[in-house]
Amino acid sequence: MISFKNDYSEGALPAILQALADTNLIQQGGYGDDDYTQQAIELIHQKIGNTGAAIHLVSGGTQANLTFISSVLRPYESAIAATTGHIFHHETGAIEATGHKIETVFAKDGKLTPALIASVVDKVEAVHMPLPRLVYISNSTELGTHYMRAELIALYEYCQRKGLVLFLDGARLASGMQAGDIRYEDLTKYTDAFYIGGTKNGALIGEAIVINNPSLQDYFSYNLKMRGALLAKGRLLGIQFRALFKGDTYLSIGAYMNEMAGKLSAGIKEAGYEFLIASKTNQIFPVLPWKVIKALEKNYAFYVWQELDEEHAAIRLVTSWNTRAEAVEQFVMDLKACGQREK
Amino acid sequence: MISFKNDYSEGALPAILQALADTNLIQQGGYGDDDYTQQAIELIHQKIGNTGAAIHLVSGGTQANLTFISSVLRPYESAIAATTGHIFHHETGAIEATGHKIETVFAKDGKLTPALIASVVDKVEAVHMPLPRLVYISNSTELGTHYMRAELIALYEYCQRKGLVLFLDGARLASGMQAGDIRYEDLTKYTDAFYIGGTKNGALIGEAIVINNPSLQDYFSYNLKMRGALLAKGRLLGIQFRALFKGDTYLSIGAYMNEMAGKLSAGIKEAGYEFLIASKTNQIFPVLPWKVIKALEKNYAFYVWQELDEEHAAIRLVTSWNTRAEAVEQFVMDLKACGQREK
Amino acid sequence: MISFKNDYSEGALPAILQALADTNLIQQGGYGDDDYTQQAIELIHQKIGNTGAAIHLVSGGTQANLTFISSVLRPYESAIAATTGHIFHHETGAIEATGHKIETVFAKDGKLTPALIASVVDKVEAVHMPLPRLVYISNSTELGTHYMRAELIALYEYCQRKGLVLFLDGARLASGMQAGDIRYEDLTKYTDAFYIGGTKNGALIGEAIVINNPSLQDYFSYNLKMRGALLAKGRLLGIQFRALFKGDTYLSIGAYMNEMAGKLSAGIKEAGYEFLIASKTNQIFPVLPWKVIKALEKNYAFYVWQELDEEHAAIRLVTSWNTRAEAVEQFVMDLKACGQREK
Amino acid sequence: MISFKNDYSEGALPAILQALADTNLIQQGGYGDDDYTQQAIELIHQKIGNTGAAIHLVSGGTQANLTFISSVLRPYESAIAATTGHIFHHETGAIEATGHKIETVFAKDGKLTPALIASVVDKVEAVHMPLPRLVYISNSTELGTHYMRAELIALYEYCQRKGLVLFLDGARLASGMQAGDIRYEDLTKYTDAFYIGGTKNGALIGEAIVINNPSLQDYFSYNLKMRGALLAKGRLLGIQFRALFKGDTYLSIGAYMNEMAGKLSAGIKEAGYEFLIASKTNQIFPVLPWKVIKALEKNYAFYVWQELDEEHAAIRLVTSWNTRAEAVEQFVMDLKACGQREK
Repeated sequence: MISFKNDYSEGALPAILQALADTNLIQQGGYGDDDYTQQAIELIHQKIGNTGAAIHLVSGGTQANLTFISSVLRPYESAIAATTGHIFHHETGAIEATGHKIETVFAKDGKLTPALIASVVDKVEAVHMPLPRLVYISNSTELGTHYMRAELIALYEYCQRKGLVLFLDGARLASGMQAGDIRYEDLTKYTDAFYIGGTKNGALIGEAIVINNPSLQDYFSYNLKMRGALLAKGRLLGIQFRALFKGDTYLSIGAYMNEMAGKLSAGIKEAGYEFLIASKTNQIFPVLPWKVIKALEKNYAFYVWQELDEEHAAIRLVTSWNTRAEAVEQFVMDLKACGQREK
Repeated sequence: MISFKNDYSEGALPAILQALADTNLIQQGGYGDDDYTQQAIELIHQKIGNTGAAIHLVSGGTQANLTFISSVLRPYESAIAATTGHIFHHETGAIEATGHKIETVFAKDGKLTPALIASVVDKVEAVHMPLPRLVYISNSTELGTHYMRAELIALYEYCQRKGLVLFLDGARLASGMQAGDIRYEDLTKYTDAFYIGGTKNGALIGEAIVINNPSLQDYFSYNLKMRGALLAKGRLLGIQFRALFKGDTYLSIGAYMNEMAGKLSAGIKEAGYEFLIASKTNQIFPVLPWKVIKALEKNYAFYVWQELDEEHAAIRLVTSWNTRAEAVEQFVMDLKACGQREK
Repeated sequence: MISFKNDYSEGALPAILQALADTNLIQQGGYGDDDYTQQAIELIHQKIGNTGAAIHLVSGGTQANLTFISSVLRPYESAIAATTGHIFHHETGAIEATGHKIETVFAKDGKLTPALIASVVDKVEAVHMPLPRLVYISNSTELGTHYMRAELIALYEYCQRKGLVLFLDGARLASGMQAGDIRYEDLTKYTDAFYIGGTKNGALIGEAIVINNPSLQDYFSYNLKMRGALLAKGRLLGIQFRALFKGDTYLSIGAYMNEMAGKLSAGIKEAGYEFLIASKTNQIFPVLPWKVIKALEKNYAFYVWQELDEEHAAIRLVTSWNTRAEAVEQFVMDLKACGQREK
Repeated sequence: MISFKNDYSEGALPAILQALADTNLIQQGGYGDDDYTQQAIELIHQKIGNTGAAIHLVSGGTQANLTFISSVLRPYESAIAATTGHIFHHETGAIEATGHKIETVFAKDGKLTPALIASVVDKVEAVHMPLPRLVYISNSTELGTHYMRAELIALYEYCQRKGLVLFLDGARLASGMQAGDIRYEDLTKYTDAFYIGGTKNGALIGEAIVINNPSLQDYFSYNLKMRGALLAKGRLLGIQFRALFKGDTYLSIGAYMNEMAGKLSAGIKEAGYEFLIASKTNQIFPVLPWKVIKALEKNYAFYVWQELDEEHAAIRLVTSWNTRAEAVEQFVMDLKACGQREK
């Protein structure tokens, strides 16, 4: 059984395991006060070209989202997201549990635009509705799409005009960046904050929250501790991000995942199938007949994403840092064979 | 510089690193739906003699405390703790951030008793004060003391009579158990829930929440996800607890830490110094002259715990799974040498 | 200037003011422990035919909603409402501020049905989405529509099957009941809880929360105190609800408001205008040309509810316990005159 | 039965009932947008000499405390109060329910001092403890004591130096002011915010939150709505505060209550009894033999405040705007008679 269910089915990059072993017996301070975390932060500072950014390493994406968003919002303020946004759709009310409403807007491709945000902002009735204060986007999105640099700039400029904080969820940042033209320095210039996903990019766990906007940096660690997000052995996160940000490791993983997903897409297209939505990232959504899906499920693990009609559904296939080209080829071969039998 | 600051200064048991390496490329389900987590849970089930316990692995102690306690309490209910209790004293208001007051009572040795709890419960004025519903204890305590089996039974019986949930914070459970006579099956019989600390007992990260009381088990995973505590790669926790609960690994680490701390205590006593509080666990609190403390700080890292007068302070020394006997011997030698010079 | 902006533009029924004066110097217990509150509760008990209902008087609708809903939900649970539901649309995130997500579904007429609720319930993905636990409806609704008895029964039966709590917001209960065929005893039989609106039905302030379901009654007062909803001089609420529930006062106010709104509707129809939505309650939504709206605004106060196109908008007109028939007639005359001029 | 249980046993000043009647049928805007609220605010502005203060009328003391305090604190921040402080002792965890810890310090007379506050502030360990940000005091206090002007200035200056917000709970402000030398303008100069208690000073309900510090004023109404504290018929509060702040009404009520309490104290002293704590306000705490207490309970209602030993307890007697001199005289006579019999 080969899994295309997600990008967190395997452990970590060998280099990460090696670094854990190499440092294991060296005593270090706790709660992020260790050399590896400092080194990781420095590497990220260099990469994003902003030594003034406050960087905090946490263990997961929901945690990154909820600690940051709840640190920004005043009690009566809300966040804006697409209805497909992970914080709204798939985090069990984590933001609401910190006391805040998420205002949503439908976006066919999972991407917000200034016009979509305005459709929320402009309808607010003072006092009787929460005040929108933060815009949440993800790159790549939950639908496998990605933002282009110009789109990000447009969003940021709109947010600046409206006094909104722009926050980018980078659970799949490397894949998103490699699919488009956004570079590290754009994240510095055109977001107030973002997080760099490690868990879905070759780490065991770990996301790096990067707070560019100085007015949002103070006392953030207190929030981490209060939400149970400050690891005693912060070194575990530091070691991993140090490894991910040595050279081009981080982005090259994104490139590899995208390459494997592209290979899958090409094969599926070749086999005669269409996609629910166009994707250049590591998540693809082919539309297949149920019979084909059932047949594939014998040897491959994946999620059925959306039932389209009695005959068809879209499935989700995800590639990871460890997806082997042979597995992709095998899948495509099997798909073609299935298709043959169906005809 | 040798650190006695805490029991989380090093990485993990070699066996844990090895297990991470051995399993690294095997694909597994996410969010705790992996073989290793299931195996770890089975091992713990066997050890505590309760296959009906709900077991959840999370990344840290504050997280374990806040997810469990907030899952038990209704909005108007409070927890009871000693003023030294970690949830009250050192978790940045994490419980209050979930909406609940902690009622406290002073306990000289950091240990609650039925009488101390009653002093809180009996003074509650209906409607105008929160209703106490959960009793929080830690074993070993934040002061290095530990509970005996008879004390635990007395607490549990009192809680049962009063409709209170008894929750034991086991951040340093192995050390606490090895110092006293509480066994795994006692934790099953005489608590509603407890957590087994991994971070301070040789794991990279990880605590295992064990919910004995069936009425508190339902839907707990939803709380985990909502609080950002459900790791995508839950395997990281499963692998570690599987290693810790193979054979006697977990408790033998506690025994080792206590042995090293006992060796330290004996040497300090021999050198002519007293202790703030008697401890048989891996945290000890010798009272030393400031001059000696200053001298020791050159080669050893530790916390000054409490200033006692102009001449003396209590320091905290903590041993870990990796504390070497030579380090302990060196410390005692240096302490004696300091003492000589001071006279 | 005559206001049709809402049903809380005036003070209280003269009988209420009189009762305040009559009882003013009589000493009573605080926090609801007064004779008037007890008498009000008894009167409501009789009216709804359920002496087992727990009844609590609070000062406003948002307060009633947030105290009750937050008392029912466990941390990971959500409420379901129509997108027009007051708790979602117009209470500044009050429910979310207590930590809970509201799942919404679009309902053209503002009324939920079992099918609409099912569309939310059936798509929940375990652990990653909150668990829906409470269904919020309002009668009359925010769009002036109302539920019929058979609709309420269908909702309740669905909720019972699914383990959902059915809660009815009765801010405008009298008007809603008088427009349809729901009677007090139906509210007892077919809801888990509801609140009886006083503020919009002739009281100075006050809503009566009625909790039918015994499993939801315990310790509710603690929640009230904790949310700042327990008035020291609870007598103020008791006196008013005692007055509202003497004889048929409460429902007869609803009848009167509906009659005045019906008179307005008839006149508007006669003048040749249509309505955004059909309403038999005290809120009506005529569609008028902007020019007519502008002309009317000189002498009448009302809200523009929805812009429909460049030429038209729907306005909202609300009648109250004190709306005078002459005011209604004058409005219709002026409307007709405006219309003439426009042609 | 005459009640000395509290200062909210009766209804309202006749002038308030009259004003309600006089304005009853005049249509006004909702949610505080009414003429009476504006007039009340202007009167208070004049009285306190600060037209820049943001003034909001709410229905009760717990509500005033929780809406204001939660509007000031960031998630990781705490409030400081005396252990007897109403927010800590008698509001059912209302502040904690908004997510914030209250740090407490014991104060024998219920009054904070810079030194007492410093004992909390100076022990904070960064990141692991909440950051204290607001100091809560009450005047008069829960023990009947009051602050003098010099004490208030010392507190404010300390808070200014430490970046702390000073908030004064004025549930019994008139009584507290009349007992000491604090004047309205001192509240403007030497607090960041305070609230003026109406409920315990002759109103039916109502407290006026006065926010002096401009940086704490923005968007406060959103918080009110979100917490269920914004009354649709805000006029009810406006009318009452307009009446209370016409001329010297507000303070003269405090003077009257203090006079009656002073008369009671004098009589009790004359009868040979002592007090738990000295008080010049409308709450007094005589120490009486249990036998005397039992005898008095036949004709008078009051709270037993504190059991002192097997023979004695302190009771609390509270006078109100409507306490009659004859009732006081009768009580003293009966007390003396009881005392005689006991001998």
